[in-house]
Amino acid sequence: MSPKRGVAPLRRAEIVRATIRCLARDGYSGLTMKKVAREARVSQGILHYYYADKRAILVAALETVTADLDRRVALAQARGGRGARARLLALVGACMRLAVEERAFWIVFVEFWGEMMHDRRLREINAVLYARMRRQIGAVVAHGIRAGVFRRVDVLRAAAVILAVVDGISLQLTFDPAAFRVGDATRFCGDAVLRYLAKEAS
Amino acid sequence: MSPKRGVAPLRRAEIVRATIRCLARDGYSGLTMKKVAREARVSQGILHYYYADKRAILVAALETVTADLDRRVALAQARGGRGARARLLALVGACMRLAVEERAFWIVFVEFWGEMMHDRRLREINAVLYARMRRQIGAVVAHGIRAGVFRRVDVLRAAAVILAVVDGISLQLTFDPAAFRVGDATRFCGDAVLRYLAKEAS
Repeated sequence: MSPKRGVAPLRRAEIVRATIRCLARDGYSGLTMKKVAREARVSQGILHYYYADKRAILVAALETVTADLDRRVALAQARGGRGARARLLALVGACMRLAVEERAFWIVFVEFWGEMMHDRRLREINAVLYARMRRQIGAVVAHGIRAGVFRRVDVLRAAAVILAVVDGISLQLTFDPAAFRVGDATRFCGDAVLRYLAKEAS
Repeated sequence: MSPKRGVAPLRRAEIVRATIRCLARDGYSGLTMKKVAREARVSQGILHYYYADKRAILVAALETVTADLDRRVALAQARGGRGARARLLALVGACMRLAVEERAFWIVFVEFWGEMMHDRRLREINAVLYARMRRQIGAVVAHGIRAGVFRRVDVLRAAAVILAVVDGISLQLTFDPAAFRVGDATRFCGDAVLRYLAKEAS
């Protein structure tokens, strides 16, 4: 492996981390290549060598925070019970804690939503990401149906609803921390998701 | 009433409509006072007389789209049944249709979310708006509990969950129209909300 191939991933990771700090402070509307270069302690020439523009760094930042969220969900699920209910609650809890405890990471998702609204390519990237998340959540729902703890539902539509609850409540938590605490929100979202999937009384 | 008082609200409304068109096209990150002035066919001097900066126009745009959403919800509820279930389904349907049929209006909400993440005053404005929406939805939920069609729930937490489902699915609809159609999404969200509030089998 050439030295350059060894250094590039580290340099890219540093630039992405610096971008995430800039986004949390100034938002995407206030993000400039100059600010990212300064925050990452690289020249603008080096920065442009790795990323063509701020949009390219936003995409890289989304990949980073998504990979981080995947790790958090996997860790929470590994720590908890192996049943479908426990795995679903672990997923809900891990997502909500990200929004509150790693606010800068959550901001990347929200800024991406704003930018994609007028950028088809960003919408396509987000559509791929959400399709994958719906499949992941859907696999847990399908597991619960097979185990007889959830009712028979359209798995991908159910996953869309669960993802919506998690996104929507995470959003409310971030601008309105006085409304409810993260532990409370995790409980009532978990309860909402389990009631939604509960089997009808037979 | 002086002529100025008569003209100012019209002029403001024109500026806000122009801003909404600019936001839909370029996003908040691409919004400039110059572009708004051109789109609204006013001088930059006139624009600055009404609004200090683009942040002030974003706040005015949020007020406009919120008032429009209120009218849509009231109209949908007036057209449908008077029971709590029908009123809740009318609300869910009206919100989802806004995201798809008045995409430019929905974009204002999403852009506002991005900007508020690093702007405390915008978060406070959104917190007031969401507290009001939770009270409105909560009133319908309370009505259903009194009428015996919904289970006894914490009304504001239930309203937060319902609002989350609507926001989250609206968001998924806007970047991933291939995943499901608005009519389908309205049905499965309505179903999710009613199941969540359904009384336990006694």
